[in-house]
Amino acid sequence: MDLTMSPKAQALLAKLEQFMDEHIYPNEEAYARQLHELENRFAIVPLMDELKAKAKEAGLWNLFVPEDYGQYSEHGGLSFLDYAPLAEVMGRVTWSPEVFNCNAPDTGNMEVFMKYATDAQREQWLTPLLNGDIRSSYAMTEPQVASSDATNIELRIEKDGDEWVLNGRKWFITGAMNERTKIFIVMGKSDPENPSRHKQQTQVLVPKGTPGMNIIRPLTTLGYDDAPIGHAEMVFDNVRVPLENVLLGEGRGFEIAQGRLAPGRMHHCMRLVGAAQRSLELACKRAVSRSTFGRPLSKHQSVREEISRSFSEIEMARLLVLKTCRMIDEQGPMNTTDMIAATKTTVPLLVQNVIDRCMQMHGAGGLTEDYMMAEAFNYARWCRQADGPDQVHQMALGKQIIDRYSGA
Amino acid sequence: MDLTMSPKAQALLAKLEQFMDEHIYPNEEAYARQLHELENRFAIVPLMDELKAKAKEAGLWNLFVPEDYGQYSEHGGLSFLDYAPLAEVMGRVTWSPEVFNCNAPDTGNMEVFMKYATDAQREQWLTPLLNGDIRSSYAMTEPQVASSDATNIELRIEKDGDEWVLNGRKWFITGAMNERTKIFIVMGKSDPENPSRHKQQTQVLVPKGTPGMNIIRPLTTLGYDDAPIGHAEMVFDNVRVPLENVLLGEGRGFEIAQGRLAPGRMHHCMRLVGAAQRSLELACKRAVSRSTFGRPLSKHQSVREEISRSFSEIEMARLLVLKTCRMIDEQGPMNTTDMIAATKTTVPLLVQNVIDRCMQMHGAGGLTEDYMMAEAFNYARWCRQADGPDQVHQMALGKQIIDRYSGA
Amino acid sequence: MDLTMSPKAQALLAKLEQFMDEHIYPNEEAYARQLHELENRFAIVPLMDELKAKAKEAGLWNLFVPEDYGQYSEHGGLSFLDYAPLAEVMGRVTWSPEVFNCNAPDTGNMEVFMKYATDAQREQWLTPLLNGDIRSSYAMTEPQVASSDATNIELRIEKDGDEWVLNGRKWFITGAMNERTKIFIVMGKSDPENPSRHKQQTQVLVPKGTPGMNIIRPLTTLGYDDAPIGHAEMVFDNVRVPLENVLLGEGRGFEIAQGRLAPGRMHHCMRLVGAAQRSLELACKRAVSRSTFGRPLSKHQSVREEISRSFSEIEMARLLVLKTCRMIDEQGPMNTTDMIAATKTTVPLLVQNVIDRCMQMHGAGGLTEDYMMAEAFNYARWCRQADGPDQVHQMALGKQIIDRYSGA
Amino acid sequence: MDLTMSPKAQALLAKLEQFMDEHIYPNEEAYARQLHELENRFAIVPLMDELKAKAKEAGLWNLFVPEDYGQYSEHGGLSFLDYAPLAEVMGRVTWSPEVFNCNAPDTGNMEVFMKYATDAQREQWLTPLLNGDIRSSYAMTEPQVASSDATNIELRIEKDGDEWVLNGRKWFITGAMNERTKIFIVMGKSDPENPSRHKQQTQVLVPKGTPGMNIIRPLTTLGYDDAPIGHAEMVFDNVRVPLENVLLGEGRGFEIAQGRLAPGRMHHCMRLVGAAQRSLELACKRAVSRSTFGRPLSKHQSVREEISRSFSEIEMARLLVLKTCRMIDEQGPMNTTDMIAATKTTVPLLVQNVIDRCMQMHGAGGLTEDYMMAEAFNYARWCRQADGPDQVHQMALGKQIIDRYSGA
Repeated sequence: MDLTMSPKAQALLAKLEQFMDEHIYPNEEAYARQLHELENRFAIVPLMDELKAKAKEAGLWNLFVPEDYGQYSEHGGLSFLDYAPLAEVMGRVTWSPEVFNCNAPDTGNMEVFMKYATDAQREQWLTPLLNGDIRSSYAMTEPQVASSDATNIELRIEKDGDEWVLNGRKWFITGAMNERTKIFIVMGKSDPENPSRHKQQTQVLVPKGTPGMNIIRPLTTLGYDDAPIGHAEMVFDNVRVPLENVLLGEGRGFEIAQGRLAPGRMHHCMRLVGAAQRSLELACKRAVSRSTFGRPLSKHQSVREEISRSFSEIEMARLLVLKTCRMIDEQGPMNTTDMIAATKTTVPLLVQNVIDRCMQMHGAGGLTEDYMMAEAFNYARWCRQADGPDQVHQMALGKQIIDRYSGA
Repeated sequence: MDLTMSPKAQALLAKLEQFMDEHIYPNEEAYARQLHELENRFAIVPLMDELKAKAKEAGLWNLFVPEDYGQYSEHGGLSFLDYAPLAEVMGRVTWSPEVFNCNAPDTGNMEVFMKYATDAQREQWLTPLLNGDIRSSYAMTEPQVASSDATNIELRIEKDGDEWVLNGRKWFITGAMNERTKIFIVMGKSDPENPSRHKQQTQVLVPKGTPGMNIIRPLTTLGYDDAPIGHAEMVFDNVRVPLENVLLGEGRGFEIAQGRLAPGRMHHCMRLVGAAQRSLELACKRAVSRSTFGRPLSKHQSVREEISRSFSEIEMARLLVLKTCRMIDEQGPMNTTDMIAATKTTVPLLVQNVIDRCMQMHGAGGLTEDYMMAEAFNYARWCRQADGPDQVHQMALGKQIIDRYSGA
Repeated sequence: MDLTMSPKAQALLAKLEQFMDEHIYPNEEAYARQLHELENRFAIVPLMDELKAKAKEAGLWNLFVPEDYGQYSEHGGLSFLDYAPLAEVMGRVTWSPEVFNCNAPDTGNMEVFMKYATDAQREQWLTPLLNGDIRSSYAMTEPQVASSDATNIELRIEKDGDEWVLNGRKWFITGAMNERTKIFIVMGKSDPENPSRHKQQTQVLVPKGTPGMNIIRPLTTLGYDDAPIGHAEMVFDNVRVPLENVLLGEGRGFEIAQGRLAPGRMHHCMRLVGAAQRSLELACKRAVSRSTFGRPLSKHQSVREEISRSFSEIEMARLLVLKTCRMIDEQGPMNTTDMIAATKTTVPLLVQNVIDRCMQMHGAGGLTEDYMMAEAFNYARWCRQADGPDQVHQMALGKQIIDRYSGA
Repeated sequence: MDLTMSPKAQALLAKLEQFMDEHIYPNEEAYARQLHELENRFAIVPLMDELKAKAKEAGLWNLFVPEDYGQYSEHGGLSFLDYAPLAEVMGRVTWSPEVFNCNAPDTGNMEVFMKYATDAQREQWLTPLLNGDIRSSYAMTEPQVASSDATNIELRIEKDGDEWVLNGRKWFITGAMNERTKIFIVMGKSDPENPSRHKQQTQVLVPKGTPGMNIIRPLTTLGYDDAPIGHAEMVFDNVRVPLENVLLGEGRGFEIAQGRLAPGRMHHCMRLVGAAQRSLELACKRAVSRSTFGRPLSKHQSVREEISRSFSEIEMARLLVLKTCRMIDEQGPMNTTDMIAATKTTVPLLVQNVIDRCMQMHGAGGLTEDYMMAEAFNYARWCRQADGPDQVHQMALGKQIIDRYSGA
């Protein structure tokens, strides 16, 4: 099991760390202020556009592009293992992945276009997405059903003449409210009676502004609206798009969803390791700068034990991510479902606990926006639900492991 | 150890539960909407005033008033043990304590006025507070120092002629931004050279609008601004008030702080038990109404184990609160520091974990404002810092227990 | 909820504590040595008989006898609530309950005789048991089946003329190997085809030495053989006893088991609270007597936090036990299954964790027999399995709570 | 970070796994029975000698020998990274490392002889140790002092003419009672007034049977005596050995201890990963073979979640061990203290928890000697104390990490 980065990725990592030092960390306050001052919470933060231009110029652009689709990036594509340390570094500042055009859900959506779209679709949507000119949403989760089992999806997609007609309700549609979002990939049921539960679904492209598409409200998680990207609840009320807006083909929606979600889960975990690592570093700085009852925190045995535990846990989380990445690179995500599930159900919870400790060492201020920790805590907590609650993945993983070792 | 409520309190509890059923739970959505629609996040929510009038009429007003100061309430005062189940019920809806004039920090501030103020101070501030006409703030915590050790407080209070002059910075000043807040109790250092570290502090009354008092910004915890009450960061820049605005006397600020905080800690824990209990009930409802992979959640053994664990933990938390209350009633808070510390360092964390589980059973929606859980989670998390981080109380409690059993 | 002990029980508690101080704690080393020197691990420890005589003389005998059967004791019977603090004190020394004729499984067996036996059975077996002259075993658990569901029991009890014939295998038969054990209460299936799954079982009395009854081996848990009481695996091979040896009646075995187990579970939890409390006290003594890196353990913040946490947890465990006892006293065990399950699934695990921490503070020695902790740790761990694994009780409790709050 | 085993180690691993399948697993019951039947608990188990002969013949001998001392083994030495998977496999059966001459404390002692002994000392002791003809002990820990800080050691070593004279008390002297143990490496204080606290200690060789060396008693941990190896408490009463029995040189005892302990800690962790892995496999087998309430355990969601969690945790523990090994190989143990401490303070606790869950799934039988789990649980628990309590290592690691990230 070789977990070594390629020289190409190492070079990118060095450049990325330098960029973070020069352009990201020094701008954290300014970014927060600009976001705060926006009239519309989901408008463009001016600083973001400036930084995107700089990142593009520095060759730190579309780092997520996978090896198999290297033609879509300047760097020629990176393996999972190579991308992990880059995503970790970006995860140190919650909003920074967008600077490098590496933020969810656009990365996943771009991969969908690369893998499953027609040339015309790619030209219309992938090109501006890769360029960072527009943003996109992926509309899958529904409030009424346990969407972690994609076969439960109820939004109706019916053929009517040369159009698809969509009716249904979605929520947690990330990016839907952002000013720059132009295209929605919508999953729904086109053939609910199909005896194969995995052939009932279809995915279609719905441009923003199509009549009948209504944003009901922004959703929050633990008080965060995640502006300017955010999560929306939406209603599709007789939304009509031409038949050619289908992705891959009628009845192939489940197949797309399967392919799309595994990388997304790994990207979240990579970033969360970075969030935990930065929280640990903040806690170490705090430990030497704050005194209680006449002793710096750093000399309290309990603080040392918590720093020690956090360090160890982050090491383990990172190794788990890297091993899973390596296995995906070697054998593909469909043969690595065990390790992907192990990573997805372990890392967010572990990171939540690490950050909880680090926040606590910061006193009341640790819960505020003065540090990146509170928002990262929300991110970790959210990831225990995102792409399916942990319990669903544990159900599958548990079954798989029991089968493996019981000889069943 | 008799943990039985008095008949008077039982009658109030029955009335309160009926009031919650009739007026509070049915208004949760309306309250959220009205709050959301306020131009100023810290203005008055119209529904609140309507409900306050109804609660007053129903005789459910100022329930917090303690036995020793029974004259300040219609019900004649309640023991800690009697108040605990009432506060628990109010804790089921985060914003409901205000309906009954039982919300922090006003309850603590009113107690300060009852115990330590002059008649004139009482007439001017306590009367309208008891009436719910104004609100108040308690300005103690400072960003630069570990304020859990009150002797660290740095805000300077100097005598200049017939005035006190205040200079310094405070944060987490709850209620400071609310439109109705009219009076601040401010703790500072008037005699920093006094050889007794507990006589260096003084508390003075500062009416809102006094020149030099500036609100810097609202603070958030885990993304919540806790509007319309909220927490502010403030600067006191040569703020001048007359000498008679001193509370209790020069150099007696520490004494007031000691007396004020113990009840506050207990009130938080009482409410948190209610928040956990309601979360458990929501989880039970969810368990029967939601199915995954063809079985209702209620039939999954893991769900039953988590419900079972949560029930047991809530029982224990409630009993710990009640026993501590009973002991405070019998021997006073100064002789119950062990049990108060045990409660304060146990209940919020326990409740945070219970709510975390209950949220998880609700899928992604569990983290939104569609339920009371996410905000209650923030409340529990915040209480691990409020009135001093748990670790500081554990330091004192650990020492006390070691001394007790080691014969040291 | 009044958790106050009766004056009678308070007087017994004071006497018991004095007895522990004078006769039990000073003899812990001597008892261990005598046990160690026994040729037969399951013989009588001489010191035990001396102490039993003293306890009887002091009026500290058969303290477990419940209120409804007060005629069987000098003290006239105690409620659950009254017995709990006495059992807690006995739990401080693992072997001490026997000194007061209050040890498992004899207490449960004596209750069975009180409730369900004929006068002749009582005279033959209950009288010497109450006198401490003989000991008894309860043979229910079987290795092949999940015995927590008593309907799974497979040992065959068949009528043949005027005799019952027993065939089957049992394990974890506590006390079976002890020299003084004279009588076995054996549960088996007499009517496996009965459509009511709760009428298939019968319990019969089998005197020691009945041909066909074979002890296969002593069992250990975590390395402990629990000598001189111990747990045996046994085979019943055509064991014959007269028909009058039936308890209560054919087909009523399940009913007896139900009635017997609830008190047993509570007694374990009472004793475990005492074991945890004593471990905490040992840890406090250790904290002041041991230094590492130049500071006594008592000054390490981490030690204070662990002492603080342990104190708080023990308080909660004790309160949960007491409330459950009070409810059993008021409404009977069959109406208190929720709280009994909550106690049984919470206290042993909590105590295991408390003791784990206290052992750790003692360094390597904490794991040896130099302290009572290691054996108490085993006792707590074992209680998570005894009388049914926690998970089975959580299944029932979870279902009950979900039903209660979901209105299902 | 390349975690790939060398081809040589891979070949050994394949051979070792085959040997386990053919000779170890099929003999677990026989070994237990032979050990049980020994008159002297610390005598030689006949099966062990048979298996040692077979292992030697199979070329599976002295696998622990490190790369730098390859001349002492047939295989020519293995790196830490190469040895880890081998030790993991041996850890699946608690007593099996001795079969391959890879058991503690002999491995550590042999390394001491390789690194620090004179040729004469090597010839006398190392040669028969490498051959498996004798066994050895390492006498460091003392009951009166916190021996994790080696400078606390109090056993007195004084020069008297041409002899060293030893006086003091030791405990947890692993192997001391074993019939085959012939040599003790004893650490003591030869120069207590030396201003350098790390030059006060000396280590000397004391052959078994030297007058004045008395074994006081065997020690148990959680009820286990770890026979036939075991842990002894010993008194050294004017024990005299010639001056040439010094190791490395007077005043260099601390240096030896430092060098000896790091590999030992890693070896424990490697084996514990194997113990956890085997427990998981047993739990999976149990899950399909046992039913409760009409469903096999494998279909209970709670069982799947616990299997899933255990799998994930074992993966992380294994990766942490491997990374630390790799770093030791690259930069030496003295430059890897952070990762060694992280491993030592994480893996045993994690493994204890994994085994606890797996035992619980086995019902009451899970705690007996019918499975390897209970004893492995004790091993994991013990390792949280062995080579220093976790807290001491966390103190050092916490300090190191705080320094690293605070720039202090």
